[in-house]
Amino acid sequence: MIPTHSGRPVRRTGPIPIAGRRATGEEIILAASIEVMSEHGYHGTSVRDIAERAGLSPAALYHHFSSKHDVLATIMDRGIEELLSRTRTALQSAGDDPPDRLRALVAVHVLFHLEDQRGTLLGTSEVRGLEEPVRSEHLAKRQQQQRMFDGVVSDGTQRRAFRTEYPQEASRAVVVMCTGVASWYHPEGPLTREEIAQRYQVLALDLVGAA
Amino acid sequence: MIPTHSGRPVRRTGPIPIAGRRATGEEIILAASIEVMSEHGYHGTSVRDIAERAGLSPAALYHHFSSKHDVLATIMDRGIEELLSRTRTALQSAGDDPPDRLRALVAVHVLFHLEDQRGTLLGTSEVRGLEEPVRSEHLAKRQQQQRMFDGVVSDGTQRRAFRTEYPQEASRAVVVMCTGVASWYHPEGPLTREEIAQRYQVLALDLVGAA
Repeated sequence: MIPTHSGRPVRRTGPIPIAGRRATGEEIILAASIEVMSEHGYHGTSVRDIAERAGLSPAALYHHFSSKHDVLATIMDRGIEELLSRTRTALQSAGDDPPDRLRALVAVHVLFHLEDQRGTLLGTSEVRGLEEPVRSEHLAKRQQQQRMFDGVVSDGTQRRAFRTEYPQEASRAVVVMCTGVASWYHPEGPLTREEIAQRYQVLALDLVGAA
Repeated sequence: MIPTHSGRPVRRTGPIPIAGRRATGEEIILAASIEVMSEHGYHGTSVRDIAERAGLSPAALYHHFSSKHDVLATIMDRGIEELLSRTRTALQSAGDDPPDRLRALVAVHVLFHLEDQRGTLLGTSEVRGLEEPVRSEHLAKRQQQQRMFDGVVSDGTQRRAFRTEYPQEASRAVVVMCTGVASWYHPEGPLTREEIAQRYQVLALDLVGAA
C-alpha cells in the first residue's frame, strides 16, 4: 500500500511492473523496498519485510545488497542521479532564453516527481535514514540540482528577463513547489501530468516575475 | 538529535524547554516524542524510546497517553488546530483587500512552520502513521487550511486583484512553498524569521500575479 496525496493507502494489484520487460532481482528488490518503506518508513522496515514483499528470501536480498541501508542509499542515489542527468540534458537543449531555460527545468522537475511519485516522496522524507558519508554526498547532489535553478533565475534577473527582488528565495520556492507535486498528485485527477507541468511553468515564470 | 535542512543532526543541549514555565508531564512527553520521532520516524520509535527521552518510565507515559498512536495523533492534532486558529484570527483582522489577506495568510503559515520546525516536519512526513478515523479527520483539517488560501486567491482573481490563470494551482503552490520553509530553515541563517515571512509574502503575491 502506498500513501497518496490524501494520505489514504492504495493497494497495488498484480506484480511490481518494470516497464514491460523481465525485471532483474535488484530491480524487484528496489521496487519492493520503495513500496514497503513508503508504508512504514525506513526505520520501520526490516530486511525481512522487503524480502517478503519482493517474494525472495533475506539471503537472496543479501546477494544484491549488503544491508537495508545499502538498499535505501541505492534508491536515493539512482533517483537524484536520474534527476540531475535529465536536468542537464534539458538545459543543454533549452537555448539561451531565460524563460525557456526555466520552463525546461520546471518540466523536468515536475514530470520526474509525478512519474516516480512514491520513490521521490521516499527520497524527500528519508534523508534522515542515510548514514554518513552517504548522506552528505546525497545532499551535495541535491544542492547541484538547486544550483541549476539558481543559475537560471540569477541569470534571468541579471538580464532583466525576471524582475523578482528575491531570486534566491524564488529559485528555492520553485524547486519546493515542483517537488511538492508528488505529495498531492492523483493519477485519476482532472489534469494530465503534462498539463500540470505546463501550469507549473506558468506559475514559476510568475514567481520570478518574468517580463 | 534533530534533522536540519542539511540533514545533519543537531544535538539538543539541556532539558526540553517549554516557554519558561514548569512543563507538564504531557508536554514533556510530546516534546520528547517529536525529538525521537524526528530521528527515527514514527514506525521506528517505540514507547520505550519516548519514555527514555522524556526521563520517564513507560508506565508513566501510559498515564498520559493510551498508545504511541495516541501520542502521534495528539501532536498532529494540536499542530493543525493551532495553525487553523492562527489563520482564522489573521484573516479576521486582515481587512477586505485581497493582497492584504494573502499577506496575512502567508505570514501565519511561514512563521508557524519556522517556529515549530521539527513538529511541522513530523506532521508533514508522518501522516502515514495515523490510523483511521484519525487520519481522515486530520486530512480534513489540512483541507480547511488549504481552503482558506483557495478562498483568498479565488476572491482576488474574481476582483481582478490577482491575474493568475491558475488560481487553484497557485493557491496550492503557495501553501506548499510556505510549508517547505521547515525543510531548509536554519536558525543561524542570514535571514530572521520575519524577513523570511516578508519575502514569502512578496513571492506569493508574484505567484498569484498581484496587480
